[in-house]
Amino acid sequence: MKPAANAPIGIFDSGIGGLTVVKAVQKQLPNEDIIYFGDTARVPYGIKSVNTVRNYALQITDFLLERNVKMVLIACNTVAASAEAEVTELCAKHGVPVLGVIEAGTLAAVELSEKNRKSDPRIGVIGTLATINSGAYETALQEKYTKTTVYSKACPLLVPLAEEGWTDNAVARQTLEFYLKPFKDKHLDALILGCTHYPLFKSLIEDILNDTHTAIIDSADSIAAMAKDHLAQKELLNSQQEIGNFSCFVSDKPQRFQKLAELFLGRHIHKIEIVKL
Amino acid sequence: MKPAANAPIGIFDSGIGGLTVVKAVQKQLPNEDIIYFGDTARVPYGIKSVNTVRNYALQITDFLLERNVKMVLIACNTVAASAEAEVTELCAKHGVPVLGVIEAGTLAAVELSEKNRKSDPRIGVIGTLATINSGAYETALQEKYTKTTVYSKACPLLVPLAEEGWTDNAVARQTLEFYLKPFKDKHLDALILGCTHYPLFKSLIEDILNDTHTAIIDSADSIAAMAKDHLAQKELLNSQQEIGNFSCFVSDKPQRFQKLAELFLGRHIHKIEIVKL
Repeated sequence: MKPAANAPIGIFDSGIGGLTVVKAVQKQLPNEDIIYFGDTARVPYGIKSVNTVRNYALQITDFLLERNVKMVLIACNTVAASAEAEVTELCAKHGVPVLGVIEAGTLAAVELSEKNRKSDPRIGVIGTLATINSGAYETALQEKYTKTTVYSKACPLLVPLAEEGWTDNAVARQTLEFYLKPFKDKHLDALILGCTHYPLFKSLIEDILNDTHTAIIDSADSIAAMAKDHLAQKELLNSQQEIGNFSCFVSDKPQRFQKLAELFLGRHIHKIEIVKL
Repeated sequence: MKPAANAPIGIFDSGIGGLTVVKAVQKQLPNEDIIYFGDTARVPYGIKSVNTVRNYALQITDFLLERNVKMVLIACNTVAASAEAEVTELCAKHGVPVLGVIEAGTLAAVELSEKNRKSDPRIGVIGTLATINSGAYETALQEKYTKTTVYSKACPLLVPLAEEGWTDNAVARQTLEFYLKPFKDKHLDALILGCTHYPLFKSLIEDILNDTHTAIIDSADSIAAMAKDHLAQKELLNSQQEIGNFSCFVSDKPQRFQKLAELFLGRHIHKIEIVKL
């Protein structure tokens, strides 16, 4: 069973964070149609249990499969850390491949290490409680290079700060100074932003780390590149000449989402629908 | 249809905040059995739409009514602001009365004004986005005294800060200094803590306001006193001599809830169950 090349790509996240992935996909694959689901009624995921995150992720995956997507991108690190195997198993029944932001972030860190010819890189990871507690980045990084040293830190306040729009004020700076303190003397080769909200704090993070040696890794570009390679290899690229459609579904507050999404993506969203799962 | 006097009191909140109400009820009505529901899978409510909060509140009310509660206490300001009428209507079909934290906080502010013989009090209110946007406190206060001046401010970061345990560090102080700035020159008679999480910041708030004239109002004691009066009046007080049972239900992470709740209430919780609504 092979999906249709003119079918849309499904992308989902707990809320607005996954729009960083949408933007990267729209840039690298402008002719692809995209269906996005943001679970704005149940955001945030990062403080929930593994079982609850799995249930929610499978409900959303069902929703995307019913709309005949040809590929699913997990644009939420918490879901990728807790439920990627379950989502992949469900999609496999429909011949639909799944890519997640954790493998994408890991791949970007590995590529950087190869470029720098380091087989014992020192990598920092920041993410939600659920992502950090899962140890998913450690496992993925150490599978590639057993000598990788991984330093990780949960930053539960960053999602609420981003949702409040406080990404470069004194409270954000003080919060990040607290969270980044353990990394300061570690001479990291890279710091992975293990949550799709965190790129909003990128310049503040660079400023606080104040170490030109440390590359800041945002997995959005990496997952978009992986999606492009995979679709090309399977001959599933959309051949339409027009700019792809963007259909958007949320579980709550569509107006607020539309406003934020249009601002962030720099384009009008024709259709946004509210769905109760 | 009259509920049974030996039936339990139902209390619910989006998460752990409502335990401040449980503690006050256990103090004032030690022989009452209590059933508590904390919607830990879907916390926080304060950033959700009115419709979503209503749906969740009605699901929880159904759950409590199935367990034959004799009274329902809404220990969540967001629910009291958005869904008290709907919860009351549903409970009325079973002859079960409903009290909410907003009327309790309002009553405490009014009693204070009467004590101080002020008919034009200046009252501040802080709460979640949903509570403040609803205007519920303004409406309730101005119904009592048309000359009341109400100043209100949404503080969306306080619930995440409390859940992170940051209630008296530098980030909490800076956040509260930002949120409380509009109240500083207002010479308030009272500041209502319009969210059951906020009593955790009480000493920091007093320190920042630095105005001995301003009374800080926490609605937990007030709603417990209202419940006691109401049950006595309806001859529905539990006549058992033993300390009442406390049964606890959550929608996610029962172990974490149990640990926090035992610490906060200062007693062992025999039974905590996870329920999917």
